[in-house]
Amino acid sequence: MRILVLHGPNLNLLGAREPEVYGHATLEEIDRDLEAWAREHGVTLKVVQSNHEGRLIDEIHASRGACDGILINPGGLGHTSVALRDALAAAPPAVTVHLSNVHAREPFRQVDLIAPVCVGGVFGFGPDAYRLGLDALTRHLAPRARPPQQA
Amino acid sequence: MRILVLHGPNLNLLGAREPEVYGHATLEEIDRDLEAWAREHGVTLKVVQSNHEGRLIDEIHASRGACDGILINPGGLGHTSVALRDALAAAPPAVTVHLSNVHAREPFRQVDLIAPVCVGGVFGFGPDAYRLGLDALTRHLAPRARPPQQA
Amino acid sequence: MRILVLHGPNLNLLGAREPEVYGHATLEEIDRDLEAWAREHGVTLKVVQSNHEGRLIDEIHASRGACDGILINPGGLGHTSVALRDALAAAPPAVTVHLSNVHAREPFRQVDLIAPVCVGGVFGFGPDAYRLGLDALTRHLAPRARPPQQA
Amino acid sequence: MRILVLHGPNLNLLGAREPEVYGHATLEEIDRDLEAWAREHGVTLKVVQSNHEGRLIDEIHASRGACDGILINPGGLGHTSVALRDALAAAPPAVTVHLSNVHAREPFRQVDLIAPVCVGGVFGFGPDAYRLGLDALTRHLAPRARPPQQA
Amino acid sequence: MRILVLHGPNLNLLGAREPEVYGHATLEEIDRDLEAWAREHGVTLKVVQSNHEGRLIDEIHASRGACDGILINPGGLGHTSVALRDALAAAPPAVTVHLSNVHAREPFRQVDLIAPVCVGGVFGFGPDAYRLGLDALTRHLAPRARPPQQA
Amino acid sequence: MRILVLHGPNLNLLGAREPEVYGHATLEEIDRDLEAWAREHGVTLKVVQSNHEGRLIDEIHASRGACDGILINPGGLGHTSVALRDALAAAPPAVTVHLSNVHAREPFRQVDLIAPVCVGGVFGFGPDAYRLGLDALTRHLAPRARPPQQA
Amino acid sequence: MRILVLHGPNLNLLGAREPEVYGHATLEEIDRDLEAWAREHGVTLKVVQSNHEGRLIDEIHASRGACDGILINPGGLGHTSVALRDALAAAPPAVTVHLSNVHAREPFRQVDLIAPVCVGGVFGFGPDAYRLGLDALTRHLAPRARPPQQA
Amino acid sequence: MRILVLHGPNLNLLGAREPEVYGHATLEEIDRDLEAWAREHGVTLKVVQSNHEGRLIDEIHASRGACDGILINPGGLGHTSVALRDALAAAPPAVTVHLSNVHAREPFRQVDLIAPVCVGGVFGFGPDAYRLGLDALTRHLAPRARPPQQA
Amino acid sequence: MRILVLHGPNLNLLGAREPEVYGHATLEEIDRDLEAWAREHGVTLKVVQSNHEGRLIDEIHASRGACDGILINPGGLGHTSVALRDALAAAPPAVTVHLSNVHAREPFRQVDLIAPVCVGGVFGFGPDAYRLGLDALTRHLAPRARPPQQA
Amino acid sequence: MRILVLHGPNLNLLGAREPEVYGHATLEEIDRDLEAWAREHGVTLKVVQSNHEGRLIDEIHASRGACDGILINPGGLGHTSVALRDALAAAPPAVTVHLSNVHAREPFRQVDLIAPVCVGGVFGFGPDAYRLGLDALTRHLAPRARPPQQA
Amino acid sequence: MRILVLHGPNLNLLGAREPEVYGHATLEEIDRDLEAWAREHGVTLKVVQSNHEGRLIDEIHASRGACDGILINPGGLGHTSVALRDALAAAPPAVTVHLSNVHAREPFRQVDLIAPVCVGGVFGFGPDAYRLGLDALTRHLAPRARPPQQA
Amino acid sequence: MRILVLHGPNLNLLGAREPEVYGHATLEEIDRDLEAWAREHGVTLKVVQSNHEGRLIDEIHASRGACDGILINPGGLGHTSVALRDALAAAPPAVTVHLSNVHAREPFRQVDLIAPVCVGGVFGFGPDAYRLGLDALTRHLAPRARPPQQA
Repeated sequence: MRILVLHGPNLNLLGAREPEVYGHATLEEIDRDLEAWAREHGVTLKVVQSNHEGRLIDEIHASRGACDGILINPGGLGHTSVALRDALAAAPPAVTVHLSNVHAREPFRQVDLIAPVCVGGVFGFGPDAYRLGLDALTRHLAPRARPPQQA
Repeated sequence: MRILVLHGPNLNLLGAREPEVYGHATLEEIDRDLEAWAREHGVTLKVVQSNHEGRLIDEIHASRGACDGILINPGGLGHTSVALRDALAAAPPAVTVHLSNVHAREPFRQVDLIAPVCVGGVFGFGPDAYRLGLDALTRHLAPRARPPQQA
Repeated sequence: MRILVLHGPNLNLLGAREPEVYGHATLEEIDRDLEAWAREHGVTLKVVQSNHEGRLIDEIHASRGACDGILINPGGLGHTSVALRDALAAAPPAVTVHLSNVHAREPFRQVDLIAPVCVGGVFGFGPDAYRLGLDALTRHLAPRARPPQQA
Repeated sequence: MRILVLHGPNLNLLGAREPEVYGHATLEEIDRDLEAWAREHGVTLKVVQSNHEGRLIDEIHASRGACDGILINPGGLGHTSVALRDALAAAPPAVTVHLSNVHAREPFRQVDLIAPVCVGGVFGFGPDAYRLGLDALTRHLAPRARPPQQA
Repeated sequence: MRILVLHGPNLNLLGAREPEVYGHATLEEIDRDLEAWAREHGVTLKVVQSNHEGRLIDEIHASRGACDGILINPGGLGHTSVALRDALAAAPPAVTVHLSNVHAREPFRQVDLIAPVCVGGVFGFGPDAYRLGLDALTRHLAPRARPPQQA
Repeated sequence: MRILVLHGPNLNLLGAREPEVYGHATLEEIDRDLEAWAREHGVTLKVVQSNHEGRLIDEIHASRGACDGILINPGGLGHTSVALRDALAAAPPAVTVHLSNVHAREPFRQVDLIAPVCVGGVFGFGPDAYRLGLDALTRHLAPRARPPQQA
Repeated sequence: MRILVLHGPNLNLLGAREPEVYGHATLEEIDRDLEAWAREHGVTLKVVQSNHEGRLIDEIHASRGACDGILINPGGLGHTSVALRDALAAAPPAVTVHLSNVHAREPFRQVDLIAPVCVGGVFGFGPDAYRLGLDALTRHLAPRARPPQQA
Repeated sequence: MRILVLHGPNLNLLGAREPEVYGHATLEEIDRDLEAWAREHGVTLKVVQSNHEGRLIDEIHASRGACDGILINPGGLGHTSVALRDALAAAPPAVTVHLSNVHAREPFRQVDLIAPVCVGGVFGFGPDAYRLGLDALTRHLAPRARPPQQA
Repeated sequence: MRILVLHGPNLNLLGAREPEVYGHATLEEIDRDLEAWAREHGVTLKVVQSNHEGRLIDEIHASRGACDGILINPGGLGHTSVALRDALAAAPPAVTVHLSNVHAREPFRQVDLIAPVCVGGVFGFGPDAYRLGLDALTRHLAPRARPPQQA
Repeated sequence: MRILVLHGPNLNLLGAREPEVYGHATLEEIDRDLEAWAREHGVTLKVVQSNHEGRLIDEIHASRGACDGILINPGGLGHTSVALRDALAAAPPAVTVHLSNVHAREPFRQVDLIAPVCVGGVFGFGPDAYRLGLDALTRHLAPRARPPQQA
Repeated sequence: MRILVLHGPNLNLLGAREPEVYGHATLEEIDRDLEAWAREHGVTLKVVQSNHEGRLIDEIHASRGACDGILINPGGLGHTSVALRDALAAAPPAVTVHLSNVHAREPFRQVDLIAPVCVGGVFGFGPDAYRLGLDALTRHLAPRARPPQQA
Repeated sequence: MRILVLHGPNLNLLGAREPEVYGHATLEEIDRDLEAWAREHGVTLKVVQSNHEGRLIDEIHASRGACDGILINPGGLGHTSVALRDALAAAPPAVTVHLSNVHAREPFRQVDLIAPVCVGGVFGFGPDAYRLGLDALTRHLAPRARPPQQA
């Protein structure tokens, strides 16, 4: 199983940017954890961070046929980008994550243009949101039995 | 670690109610899986389903001091109940889950009064939403190391 | 044919409550008329009034398999309850009635969360709304020929 | 008792137009049934269909003194015409009907400018909506006893 | 003079719940003070707290004929419950109180469905809101002279 | 304890202006009662009525250091004046009162720009609103024991 | 000077329709007064009443070149008809009048699509609105000196 | 008959201020014309211009008992002042006028808080608006016969 | 191939009406060009202009079975008429055109009730909009090869 | 005549992406057809597709002086990008096209920030939209006679 | 060059009022700095502070012919006063300033009625806003060369 | 002191693009002036213009640690980009400028997503906006004494 992991604008600053909102883990640490989890579960990750909407769309396009699913933290673009939404609507199944609890923040963050074209999503929980989202995505793509020992 | 699992209105019908939206798993099956996961992780669950807002609030109140966290699928009340929100604001940390992708449904389901007073939430993924939410909640309460073998 | 007749909050006060809006007939009189009409047409009624949203939902759930249709006057809940709507969406065909002309009253009474998941509805006409709704519901369930002598 | 039955725009196409929404009965069949019901109940009908708002208003004006009540399916004009509303406000008591469940359709169909100046209304149920509305209107004009044998 | 004092959802937690918003007095202390004030003024109180909307409506109904007025802190239901509003509209004169200054909080707390059917209301001041509301209600029911010595 | 009592626009007409809304007591009578209550409780009042927003702001400024609290009936300015709000935000603690139940009137009276910067408020009850507000304000400034004999 | 006087939908009922809103004068009386005033001032009137939007538009078109100005009471069409507005935008200068004070009525009557393409307008005053509007229109077309004796 | 003529903020600049919007007549010229018209019709005018909302309210109060009606051009206050509205609601009958066609200008000028408490109003027509409004007001107060020679 | 060409309200004035918005071509010239194009492409046109909504609906109804497609410039009715929309929804495939760029005009012209039930539309370009729309409609009905020589 | 043809985000996927919405033609096929049409009409095309808003803006800037007009399908950016709008406002005349009928899709697709700064636009018709738009644009730039043989 | 400097409501409290929002500088200090800057640049200032909207309007009127420009901090009136806006629209060029970053505060402070009729504005920066605004205004009135030594 | 000067989309066209809105100065001239001012004040500038949101975000990220402040004219992105806002929220103190008076333009330009995370801003004044913003920013970073000779 191949998964494209997309980090949107400003996520390269994780750990340094507003840590009281986004936590102290850096994107490198998060990616390392995701890679470890992926290896453990026989999943191959392609990880891309970009502050450019166009680059993210290009990557989503490239994932068609090359990946089985997409894990995306759209950052601020999740609230504003119809173009990103349209790209995801024509891509492998996607899961959207937000590190912060967007529902407890500014009103403009309640608008979510990306979620309706995704399988589902996770918000809050800081870096755990990524691992939870990856777990959910991989199960969606290949439903596993749910015995206690594998949870 | 003791967790209160609250299922709101209509979730007793899971498996039978609109399966194209909510899936075929029954609430009993979901609860059984959650219990298994919980035992595996040394977590004690108290599970309550009710179609009565007042009953849900009573249970949230009773959890103060008796539980360490709350996993709640508020069902339709998540979009309308200020009283439930106020109860959760005075309760142990909570995580909200929705089985369906509420963002892809009617506009009134975009309103979420519960999420802002929760740690975070999960939507979509069907029954997996519960397990993901429980996983997230227990980590929030007792952050675990994140070695690959335990994910 | 078995029909569940549900009277929502405050309808127990009919006849005594704001008679200039709701008329002078009591709920008992209305139910008696409905029962007579039902007997005449070979229909069995189960009649429940409750001021508790949860109780109404419980009854709707219990009607699955036990009733062929639901006649509901949701009272004030019709304007606010997503939970009730979700229950009806998973229940036998329903018809919604309002005694008063809700369109001629406060703006918040223009919102109708229940009607979209019903077959149809009747508003205004006072107690006649119930009999008209029952008539409509039974025809919907078992379309009758429409000769003049049976109208 | 004399009743003006008004069919607004597009209702001449009933049976042929979007039958999945409006059913297969033609307006002629509906009118024939209404006439039969009316004869049975000693009611005289004047039936008019027009796609012209002005014609409908002219008919409503002409009904003053000539009819005891109005049964109107305003079609799309019910959502947009203040002029029609003003005409009804100065006319004999009226009942509004819609064949389809307007609450389950586009948002602009939730606006009802006509209902507030009517006695009440019926929506959904297809052609039955007319007969139910006529029944309700005649009772409103001459309240009948409600013995089981006459329902 | 007999007064029904209704405490809505979550007020049983007073003193423990968000004391920075609602203060440190418990509901028992507030009730004790109200009882003392009532005895002093020849007023009989019936005090009920419930987290169940239906129970509150039942109590309001039961107060018809049994009480002369109602003092209600609807809690979160004051912003959302049309059913509660309808019950109060058919009940003895009511006064609504909120312990916190709802105008200085979230936008959804600016909606007040209850106040329009009350005589008046008091917001802010913590537990004093109750005593002020009771004072206002009893004066409304039996206007007293206003000599300085009795204020 | 020194309190500034501010009566906003049109309150000089009390008793004469729309008595069905505002009652028959004149502002002089209200002030006399407030003065009596104040003397009884060892409170000094400064009473000002003005139809000029600027004058009201000037008085609020002058109260800084000179008064311990402000009792204000902003009249129509409470719904429109940001300048008055800003003045109160920089003044001693204030309590806002309205003689009429503003929630039962025009929609533009639901906007309250003043309340969020006040300790709390009272609406409805006619002239009693002032005395209740003064009572609440003085308790806020110097919390009294609450024995029955002093209520 | 030639003026087209247009009476929109329902104005043929003047005197009979809701006299508490529109007064007791009939349209014939109003037209007779307007004619008298016009003769006095050397103005020729063409008066048309229609309940048909299309007819009103046809008349407006016909007035191009044939009339110097238009006095129009659009009735309910003034709040809804873009087509009527477009016709007036391409016609001789127009003045709009309403017999009732539309600002004191339902919210949908606050929308005025016609006024922005008119020279000005008059509302309220009952039948006087017409004469005032005609006076204003003729002065607009041929500004008169304003000596006291001619006012 | 005594009429208070009130000119609100900025009207002292007439003739000089934005003449393309408001025309070239000065307020002095307008007042002189109004005085001439008034003398001709046996009407006594009291004319006041002020840029102070409070002053305008004071004058309205003073007109109670001293004047039979009020002609007011509220200027910008007509769109924003609840206090002015409240004053007029407790005053002799009033007529509101605007020199410009407010419907053809910025959206915030469509809000009219004053008109609903007036008898009616006139907008557009430049200075003629005043004379038309005075004409309308005096007829409202003392309906005249409408012979051609007096128009 | 038979096409109904419908010109809505005010289009009979083309060339004379607001030429800076709609251009100088008359409707006759436009129709002549359309006829020429149609003959060239083996298409038969039926052309109707009406200022009457009802007439337009009648024509749309009559086109059922008689025409293969509809080219409609609804004029102002495109922004307001649900009845016209309903007629088109039950008619042969339609294309909507506007001569002016409605997106660059008043906000109420952004509402398009007709477009959602059409195949597509063209706006701006003046009279060219018609020919482009006819071209698009005929291709939609009978997709042509797209060799360069036939474009 | 030189025309810049701009394809916005996701249009590179045409034929593969949601063909039920956008059709089966690929962008290459569309471009080939456009080129053929252009050659036939003596028009030179420069064709650019990009998923990057910035790139599209750069191209628009570069077209100043280098092209006579712009044909743009802004994709999702048409609903959200003020920057793109500002670029077009300072560029040669532009025509906007959408392959799908955006009016029949989600509400956020009704917002069109680009159209107001274009000459006009075409929506629906699939790939034909481009050719129609190019036809319209070239005529706008160099109005041709409209003899039947060249349509 | 003569400049009118207007300080609106509550600015007399600068330094004392909410210093965490508005800073510690007093209005006297700000005025002294402005005067010094003005002298340095050959500009004459007239400085007025008032809490009275009417007074501010009077001053703006008086500045016509007497001043070359206006520097205004409208305080709370900037969000609510159409009258002040109208005065500025008929006055010498004006610049608006706010000491605080109004965009980071309550939603009602995002409404700016004054800015659209000003040359431009400055917000945030505390007292520096005034000097920056004065600098901008004087340059607007008499564009200076921009050599480095004079900045 | 090191300052990053960011020019957003379309600002490279300054002088050529809509000069009646943005003035005739080119970006080169503006930058030259800013450089001169900066040198004069011992400030080092890094100046970047880009039409790419992603590039602007990259530059803001790079400024962390490398610059002391940011002067940004976000162009159209200021009204739409949450991603840009998030970048600025994690960056050195920023000042936002707009050359035109955005408050006097289209409604969508009233939305400012950037300003709330800036120290303050300047709008209008054309190129002067930059110098004023730079002046304000440098003072904010290193408050200077404000003697007359240094203004």
